[in-house]
Amino acid sequence: MKSFRQVSSLLSRSSNNKRKMSQSAAQANLVLDNMNPCIKKMEYAVRGPLVIRATAIEKEIEAGVQKPFPNVIKANIGDAHAMGNKPITFIRQVLALITHPPLLETNEFPEDAKDRARAILKGCRGASVGSYSDSPGIEIIRRHVADYIAERDGFPAEWTNIMLCAGASEGIRACLKLMTNPGEGKRPGVMIPIPQYPLYSASLAEYNMDQVGYYLDEDRNWALDPAELERSISEAREKCDVRAIVIINPGNPTGQVLTRENIVDIIKFAYKEKLFIFADEVYQHNVYAEGSQFHSFKKVMNELGAPYNQMEMASFMTCSKGYMGECGIRGGYAEVINMDEGVMAMLQKSISAKLCPTVIGQACMDAVVNPPRPGEASYESWDAEVQGVLASLKRRAQLVADTLNSIPGFKCNTVQGAMYAFPQIMLPEKAIAAAKEAGQAPDVFYAFNLLEATGICIIPGSGFGQRPGTYHFRTTILPQEDVTKEMLGRLKDFHLEFMNKYS
Amino acid sequence: MKSFRQVSSLLSRSSNNKRKMSQSAAQANLVLDNMNPCIKKMEYAVRGPLVIRATAIEKEIEAGVQKPFPNVIKANIGDAHAMGNKPITFIRQVLALITHPPLLETNEFPEDAKDRARAILKGCRGASVGSYSDSPGIEIIRRHVADYIAERDGFPAEWTNIMLCAGASEGIRACLKLMTNPGEGKRPGVMIPIPQYPLYSASLAEYNMDQVGYYLDEDRNWALDPAELERSISEAREKCDVRAIVIINPGNPTGQVLTRENIVDIIKFAYKEKLFIFADEVYQHNVYAEGSQFHSFKKVMNELGAPYNQMEMASFMTCSKGYMGECGIRGGYAEVINMDEGVMAMLQKSISAKLCPTVIGQACMDAVVNPPRPGEASYESWDAEVQGVLASLKRRAQLVADTLNSIPGFKCNTVQGAMYAFPQIMLPEKAIAAAKEAGQAPDVFYAFNLLEATGICIIPGSGFGQRPGTYHFRTTILPQEDVTKEMLGRLKDFHLEFMNKYS
Repeated sequence: MKSFRQVSSLLSRSSNNKRKMSQSAAQANLVLDNMNPCIKKMEYAVRGPLVIRATAIEKEIEAGVQKPFPNVIKANIGDAHAMGNKPITFIRQVLALITHPPLLETNEFPEDAKDRARAILKGCRGASVGSYSDSPGIEIIRRHVADYIAERDGFPAEWTNIMLCAGASEGIRACLKLMTNPGEGKRPGVMIPIPQYPLYSASLAEYNMDQVGYYLDEDRNWALDPAELERSISEAREKCDVRAIVIINPGNPTGQVLTRENIVDIIKFAYKEKLFIFADEVYQHNVYAEGSQFHSFKKVMNELGAPYNQMEMASFMTCSKGYMGECGIRGGYAEVINMDEGVMAMLQKSISAKLCPTVIGQACMDAVVNPPRPGEASYESWDAEVQGVLASLKRRAQLVADTLNSIPGFKCNTVQGAMYAFPQIMLPEKAIAAAKEAGQAPDVFYAFNLLEATGICIIPGSGFGQRPGTYHFRTTILPQEDVTKEMLGRLKDFHLEFMNKYS
Repeated sequence: MKSFRQVSSLLSRSSNNKRKMSQSAAQANLVLDNMNPCIKKMEYAVRGPLVIRATAIEKEIEAGVQKPFPNVIKANIGDAHAMGNKPITFIRQVLALITHPPLLETNEFPEDAKDRARAILKGCRGASVGSYSDSPGIEIIRRHVADYIAERDGFPAEWTNIMLCAGASEGIRACLKLMTNPGEGKRPGVMIPIPQYPLYSASLAEYNMDQVGYYLDEDRNWALDPAELERSISEAREKCDVRAIVIINPGNPTGQVLTRENIVDIIKFAYKEKLFIFADEVYQHNVYAEGSQFHSFKKVMNELGAPYNQMEMASFMTCSKGYMGECGIRGGYAEVINMDEGVMAMLQKSISAKLCPTVIGQACMDAVVNPPRPGEASYESWDAEVQGVLASLKRRAQLVADTLNSIPGFKCNTVQGAMYAFPQIMLPEKAIAAAKEAGQAPDVFYAFNLLEATGICIIPGSGFGQRPGTYHFRTTILPQEDVTKEMLGRLKDFHLEFMNKYS
């Protein structure tokens, strides 16, 4: 009670004393040999060694080290604000108002933002965002999410099926965890696309579940081939008990938007094979290509009618992507439908020990699903900001794919949606041999060379999965338009030189 | 991209269509019989059936149902703001400023709050709280936490050992998870106090680890008896591989503050038995009793010198408790010392798939560890608010224990710290028989009767663990002083009647 107010510096804050504390204990009891083997196995490339090196280079540049490039460009992660994309004013106004309610009494904020803030505070115990919410979230926000889904799909959504969570990842992990089977019987398996977003491979490794990959068809703009689903599951059934299928639509890292027909095929396949559907739909606002349209799994299942509208499915959404890009706020939701009532009760119980997702993250989700409506004070400026962001992303999606396709030895599908391009690189034999000599996968070798030569940080395809013998990388389309051009210029120069060297 | 803007209501938002969607699927593939058995096993009493019933009663009262009491009093959870405790102005100012930076240009906020906000925003990529931070948190905040610990203890703290997390729970779970051993060899076990905070029992159940209980000594104000530690571990060693010991100080649910001598005993025991120490120190600001003082494990380990200052330890802290009570904001940290370097790398990797803890939660932690200093603009008002909260909690701690001890059949230890009293109730044989008939544990029977008769929601001792044949409950000391008095009055009346009925 006293110590936290002691302001006098008992010791210097210099780094003199630091080494001692950061060394490992001479005789640690918890060591690599006796720790959880699943944690050792998991990999999360989006924040892996390449990114660690990129951050180190940033620090070197800060410290004055000379490099053949002026700055690092981090195209490794879908982090819009980090790349200079601006927050949507209305969202931040609502969040500031609920955080510091005396602002409600000022004239600095529009009435619609104040209305939203008052409704959220009314849903908070003690009218404070500092109180715990119910574990699945604040009722009024869950109701707004259900309304949003109902409007989106034209089919009803039940607010009690909505579980707010700290980003979509948390919801995905909570649902996956229901299907593990520690140490008993056949190993559980989950079908995931290859290439996939490594949250899935990392979480499956952590939960000691089998990863059952199905390849997306690169030649058909990463479409999903029902025959490939059949191949994948029939091979897997021998080894594990396949419980669920993950679909990422729009695709990460692949940027495709599934057609309605493709979704119908997947639903029918999942029905036949008795699979729980994980619909990762976090990029539902990010659709750019002419003719592409987002269809939610929920909507298509309902359009198909019985028995498909009775299937178990969880759909995931976030505040981190879309036009808002509020990654650091950690807001998201899962809509879980047709889950067995007993299992649903267990899901609710399992999240209760984590108390509740961040209330401000929940409020951010509210501002996304309950935006200004025509006629409200903020509508026009909000709409202009949103359309501005989406139009710019659309231009960048096109620019990235077109530029990559203009480079000899690159093949890039249309970025129909999401925030990434996943081009294939045709690496010459000599480069593959050089990679082998360096003890690296060829795409990792390429990515490290690119980083050291140009400061561009992208993620090699092996972090997401790819057909053997093919090489890719994922780049975001998030750098601002001038930076995107600068990045593609550096990439092209590097690539031509690299090909020259290894041809 | 279109659907989220469709404002027209395609369907009425009435509840007509709701039933269909919320029913279970007729033939669910994921059912209780084939779901993760560990999730089924876990219990989290603080949000269990009693609380669900209390919430239902609140709704009944809202709907006009007559009850023998005017309102529900939720003393089940340490949720300060929900019980009318006010946020600390300085904290909320900092959070509002970082959330909506245009406020930095107004004259509404003091300079020290603006300074803190600017420093935090400088640490955010793109100067936005909407960007992801590093997975262990923003460097400048981790440095501030290390400074706070160094000031508190008089020993250096290394910022790279600090891991920010969404509440202490997340940090505790991340560290516990390192020690699981799915399906291989002897089951891992962790020593936890009985009574304990059910986050531990719930997480151990989820991770399929053994719970190794050691009893706190109720007759010595819940002190920790080294002989009991010896008994506990020697019995457990036969069944499992004991990896770690959890100590909660100040105690939850028991409210004791460990003496320095007691801490020395525990450290020496952990050294001898090669245990990783989990020091749950989230109530370090909540010490009320004369003569009681908070000693951190880190400080005592360092005072003892080698070999004790080389031991593996993680200490946990939160924004949810203390004088701030910012539960919904989800801020916290773990300081992890002397961990094997390889294991530390795995810990960092394991949190990376969750991307990052809420940036606003991180910022809240910053405002706690880096509060206004004497001479700064907010210091006096901040100090007055903090001292006001802590003085009121101190009065309530005394009031609750004294009043409970004045009721025949109650025995309550001094609430030296934290936010709870954990009184023993001497239940008559007839009540125990009635409970048995109702199919409930006697303390659960008591708690449900209390709730239905008075609207008071407390948590039965069996949710925390207690010596067989003894009965307790946990109540928070968080209701405002007048409500606390009202609650204790209702409780006393109920108890006398209950004893009368079953004597």
